[in-house]
Amino acid sequence: MWRDLAPIGRDATTTGYRRYAWTGADADCRAWFRGQAETRGLTYEVDRNGNQWAWLGDPAAGDAVVTGSHLDSVPDGGAFDGPLGVVSSFAALDELRARGKHLAKPLAIVNFGDEEGARFGLACVGSRLTAGQLTVDQAHTLRDADGVSLPQAMERAGYDPEAIGPDPERLARIGAFVELHVEQGRALADTGDAVGVASAIWPHGRWRFDFHGEANHAGTTRIEDRRDPMLTYANTVLAARKKARLAGALATFGKVSVEPNGVNAIASLVRGWLDSRAADEKTLAAVVEEVERAAVERGQRDGVEVRVTRESFTPVVEFAHDLRDRLSGLLGGVPVLPTGAGHDAGILSASVPTAMLFVRNPTGVSHSPAETAGEDDCLAGVAALAQVLEGLACH
Amino acid sequence: MWRDLAPIGRDATTTGYRRYAWTGADADCRAWFRGQAETRGLTYEVDRNGNQWAWLGDPAAGDAVVTGSHLDSVPDGGAFDGPLGVVSSFAALDELRARGKHLAKPLAIVNFGDEEGARFGLACVGSRLTAGQLTVDQAHTLRDADGVSLPQAMERAGYDPEAIGPDPERLARIGAFVELHVEQGRALADTGDAVGVASAIWPHGRWRFDFHGEANHAGTTRIEDRRDPMLTYANTVLAARKKARLAGALATFGKVSVEPNGVNAIASLVRGWLDSRAADEKTLAAVVEEVERAAVERGQRDGVEVRVTRESFTPVVEFAHDLRDRLSGLLGGVPVLPTGAGHDAGILSASVPTAMLFVRNPTGVSHSPAETAGEDDCLAGVAALAQVLEGLACH
Repeated sequence: MWRDLAPIGRDATTTGYRRYAWTGADADCRAWFRGQAETRGLTYEVDRNGNQWAWLGDPAAGDAVVTGSHLDSVPDGGAFDGPLGVVSSFAALDELRARGKHLAKPLAIVNFGDEEGARFGLACVGSRLTAGQLTVDQAHTLRDADGVSLPQAMERAGYDPEAIGPDPERLARIGAFVELHVEQGRALADTGDAVGVASAIWPHGRWRFDFHGEANHAGTTRIEDRRDPMLTYANTVLAARKKARLAGALATFGKVSVEPNGVNAIASLVRGWLDSRAADEKTLAAVVEEVERAAVERGQRDGVEVRVTRESFTPVVEFAHDLRDRLSGLLGGVPVLPTGAGHDAGILSASVPTAMLFVRNPTGVSHSPAETAGEDDCLAGVAALAQVLEGLACH
Repeated sequence: MWRDLAPIGRDATTTGYRRYAWTGADADCRAWFRGQAETRGLTYEVDRNGNQWAWLGDPAAGDAVVTGSHLDSVPDGGAFDGPLGVVSSFAALDELRARGKHLAKPLAIVNFGDEEGARFGLACVGSRLTAGQLTVDQAHTLRDADGVSLPQAMERAGYDPEAIGPDPERLARIGAFVELHVEQGRALADTGDAVGVASAIWPHGRWRFDFHGEANHAGTTRIEDRRDPMLTYANTVLAARKKARLAGALATFGKVSVEPNGVNAIASLVRGWLDSRAADEKTLAAVVEEVERAAVERGQRDGVEVRVTRESFTPVVEFAHDLRDRLSGLLGGVPVLPTGAGHDAGILSASVPTAMLFVRNPTGVSHSPAETAGEDDCLAGVAALAQVLEGLACH
């Protein structure tokens, strides 16, 4: 399975993946998914929000066991974030069948669309729409860097954008959702386990900081006449790191855009995006507030106006305790650990009993071509997922 | 003249100009120049490097008086930087003719190509090529953001890239070059003069700072496991301002590019371009060295590798003292002042006696849509240029 999927959307220079929602690379990944479903005789369908499903058994029977993840990527992402969950789902099904296991409940493998939000700036669009956590009106306002709206992009990819919207009937048929994912930190590397179970997802969000100054000539404008927003931005980047460190939280500026972005022009506008996460919502709010205050204070010194817009926010997610404990028990007491990363499982957990399995990441590197997982650990992940699916669906 | 030129290449949103070398907007500006030349019965020609010339009298006679400037712009530039010099040249010629002045020497108006360097990253390409300060081999390595090379861009615009190269015969026919330009600071606003004469151009250059870190997930990577180049960049931006202020110099980061530039990804690479200028080359070298040292030191803390590349450097330009004094005398002792900005006049001054006139800029704003000059001051500029041309060419 990996051999067919590996070359899709891979940039020759960076060796990272660029599988953005509703692009050609995404279509190739989706064709791969459909092929895997059909090869196994599974019933393939696309739901109203463009998520792909492969069913074994009657979806309408209810209490279905669903597993899967996503196939899209961040810019220059790694090979495992998303695809490991989808590939492992098919492999786990193969293992159950090879062992002659009979399923007492319907089982589905799912590929959620646009999980990373690399194109439209909002993560988990496919699962959010399905769970009603993103309204149709909000979805219509999403645009990519070229000004293409989400409905336009879906239409160009051959999907009907008129159909998008909440899908409670589909969710009501699901008894349990389990997402397997490569770990995005080094907790399992430290404990020495190949597989773990998720306890919770930290609350997290994205805030856009707009620093408005005044464009001017970099070679002739006296320092005292400048209103240079790059200075305010720079100070805010350093303040964010400091505030996060003191609070035991995370705060990152990883994306920036500058106008006019000329070497000999003082910028008129610097936009920086803050990604921040913490163990609880109160700590997170305090960190973001302190970063904003530092930005505004420095802006007053620089003659720069600062505007902060919250672009997304995901509250803390506590995965279903009974399902979590059941999985941990099925797997012989593997570690139970929290994560700072958002997932479709986090979105679905508000609607259906949801759990996550993590596979060890030896370096902890994620969202990068250097992201990796050992072959033995991946096989251990498949075995664990098969065991979980058997426990949930076969009895 | 302004009415026809004003709408070309103007962005409707920013109201700034985007007249980049060898683009459609540039072609429209060049068509305007040709029209102005032909309307006046001047002999129009394009030299081997794509610079446009409009001649009155026989170019081969030698000791020509040349005036002019450029029509291209920085990203979202103002209306005056460049065009004011070209428009004023035609207007000054009109004034000499209206006053029935007879020219004893050939006179030319010139539009130098690609002065701002907005597309290929190197300023004054047209005059540099003509003066032999940019070799043909170097010119062939210039590429725009889409990977289009300078020769390709010239060819697509209908010019012969095989012809480019030094043009000493052309320069040998020039007895004096005078460029009129809107001031890019507030020195004349402070002295209360409409027009001034340039003494020198500060040495200046561009340095690219590459900050190499490690891409990783912004939501799951512990602070102690990060190698985040955005932090090193931010610290370097602030250090550059501080070092420049202490040295009485200028240092600006106005352009930045980030990889992968995703909200939830720690950057793998941040590239920032430093524009720095000072009254003398020793001070400039010291400032850049201090900024580089600060970047490397911070990089060691952040686990980030810093590489610095000098992309361009222009030594101090002292304009011809006798010509400068003659102009100042012709204009009744107007102020003589230095500038931090590079110009085609600075390039040509190594080959021919060269001078510059500045027209007052009430706000000092430059390289921005807010750049302005009063109508009375523009007319005073035309009158001054006419007086200078009369003094140089009519006797």
